[in-house]
Amino acid sequence: MSQPVSPLLPGSTIGILGGGQLGRMLALAAARLGLKSHIFCPDPQSPAFDVTPFRTVADYDDEAALEAFAAAVDVVTYEFENVPAGTAQLLAGLKPLRPGANALAIAQDRLAEKAFLSGKNVPVAPYRAVHGIDDLHRAVDELGLPAVLKTTRLGYDGKGQRVLRAPEDAEAAFAALAPHPLVLEAFVPFDKEISVVVARGADGAVRAFDPAENVHRDHILFTSTVPAGLSPALERQAGMIAKAIVIALDYVGVLGVEFFVVPGEGRPGLLVNEIAPRVHNSGHWTEAVCRTDQFEQHIRAIAGWRLGDPGRLADVVMQNLIGDEAGLIPEGLEDDIRPHLYGKAEARPGRKMGHVNRIVRGG
Amino acid sequence: MSQPVSPLLPGSTIGILGGGQLGRMLALAAARLGLKSHIFCPDPQSPAFDVTPFRTVADYDDEAALEAFAAAVDVVTYEFENVPAGTAQLLAGLKPLRPGANALAIAQDRLAEKAFLSGKNVPVAPYRAVHGIDDLHRAVDELGLPAVLKTTRLGYDGKGQRVLRAPEDAEAAFAALAPHPLVLEAFVPFDKEISVVVARGADGAVRAFDPAENVHRDHILFTSTVPAGLSPALERQAGMIAKAIVIALDYVGVLGVEFFVVPGEGRPGLLVNEIAPRVHNSGHWTEAVCRTDQFEQHIRAIAGWRLGDPGRLADVVMQNLIGDEAGLIPEGLEDDIRPHLYGKAEARPGRKMGHVNRIVRGG
Repeated sequence: MSQPVSPLLPGSTIGILGGGQLGRMLALAAARLGLKSHIFCPDPQSPAFDVTPFRTVADYDDEAALEAFAAAVDVVTYEFENVPAGTAQLLAGLKPLRPGANALAIAQDRLAEKAFLSGKNVPVAPYRAVHGIDDLHRAVDELGLPAVLKTTRLGYDGKGQRVLRAPEDAEAAFAALAPHPLVLEAFVPFDKEISVVVARGADGAVRAFDPAENVHRDHILFTSTVPAGLSPALERQAGMIAKAIVIALDYVGVLGVEFFVVPGEGRPGLLVNEIAPRVHNSGHWTEAVCRTDQFEQHIRAIAGWRLGDPGRLADVVMQNLIGDEAGLIPEGLEDDIRPHLYGKAEARPGRKMGHVNRIVRGG
Repeated sequence: MSQPVSPLLPGSTIGILGGGQLGRMLALAAARLGLKSHIFCPDPQSPAFDVTPFRTVADYDDEAALEAFAAAVDVVTYEFENVPAGTAQLLAGLKPLRPGANALAIAQDRLAEKAFLSGKNVPVAPYRAVHGIDDLHRAVDELGLPAVLKTTRLGYDGKGQRVLRAPEDAEAAFAALAPHPLVLEAFVPFDKEISVVVARGADGAVRAFDPAENVHRDHILFTSTVPAGLSPALERQAGMIAKAIVIALDYVGVLGVEFFVVPGEGRPGLLVNEIAPRVHNSGHWTEAVCRTDQFEQHIRAIAGWRLGDPGRLADVVMQNLIGDEAGLIPEGLEDDIRPHLYGKAEARPGRKMGHVNRIVRGG
């Protein structure tokens, strides 16, 4: 059960750990609600620093800086799931931390996440913990190949994983990723990848955005398309699973749930690939066509405000601008494109520089 | 003819004169386009200062501060039409000023504005310049009563005007408003008030948002409703007049045009009440339901970017939150409301504290 919470008054300050594009978009959403944002980030070049005068440049383990930050804000949230546990614990002792430390702990560790989801009867791909090379050989026998060996912590955008196609790949993959704790996941042939961005308010209300179909390129999200082209039954099921997860976590805020749509017995089914306790790249389409977007929804939730209507006014395709693709703007800008650039000075290869939303129908 | 202009690159800085809610919303829109904003405002409590670290607190006639500001930005725009002429002239000599000084000069002076509009065959209510009490008596004879006596400069939200209902009202009205230059406007019985927010790009492209029907309360805008309930012919005419005005002004940016819908011979007609060379309160609905909102459109225009599609995805009612009405948020917030608060610390009576958009259909 959530505890009753007084909503933050306008003029209050949201503390945001992380100064990347997600922190920046959260700060922009907070501003529209009359709330201030204070960004905490070690990188003095953080793009979020350009949208608020309130900042702390310090390491995430700088206790004095964290204490001063907590004293300056009314609630603490974060843009990335790899907030160190000590940082989360220290802050949670001083100000409300939303989403809470338990969601963070679970989402930081693939093994804990899969155990949590399985324990709640949420379908996931078969997996095995891998503590040593013997575990890996046994896991390969049990799950079959191909399979994916992943570090349990700190992987993102395809980093920290190796595909095993033949038993003899095991040694090299293990050598590349050990001594980190690892997990072997069965490779599940899937029809498509989808995601649901879901929110739970401090009052326990739960609202989900429509599922998006996601296409990756070089392990980085390339496009999210809505509607996702699912059957109504599967669309409903995805929303229900996402809602069940935030309820099970006693969660406050927005959470991203990634699914594989897999061929089932007669009809396709869903497996949860991973969850992210934050606003999600695959939810950037919401800012162009939803009554309430994911950033506003997250701020409403963590501020203890009533959640907004996530309803959608049109179909949409979101496309990430990676590396020098951002150079298309402004010269290549078309009038049906709603651009969003993150204000990053340097366009390194693989770096998310911005995104565009193309509204394909409606109005 | 507009001169060809290179679009500003992402990372460039927009200079904004004025730190109120319009400057704040322009800065938020600029951020979404990867542009920085530098706010210039004499009031250190300006709400726009909360959404960018780049600021100058100085008077509008502080030449050294204006020069430093111009050196720090790539283009200069403004959130209010009463920018002093000397300020505009100084800045325009240092950096592109958009919209230009001529639009500012015309919009600052009701008499110049009416002469300009009449000269372009834009219909306006009958009016007479009033330099002395004799002019006023003559104007009353010629235009009839009731009529409205207004200062030619610096009036807004009902300030600086007096209604004359009988000839004997003339002396008191003149005494109240003189020695300012004045204009007497015939009181035109109208069916409703509407407005069109229109944009012209640096490339000469012109796009108009749909007309809104505006309802005032205590001389302050209360609601804007879209669609405005006009015949298709009148809706088209309003858009055409608005476009003709920005073309005639060789304008770059967003401009608000207020109209009276008046009973005509057999069918209603339009009179232009006033123009505002800036984003407009009656265009705040665009942020909830348009493919491109008025703030992004203004930034795209002054940055030399291609204008966005102003198309509308749903019907909407915008309502201003005046004074302590902002106290409705967050406790009275409903899920179908998209709120926007301006971050003003003090809710004085008559002060615009925020607005809400209610999407009434679509999606």
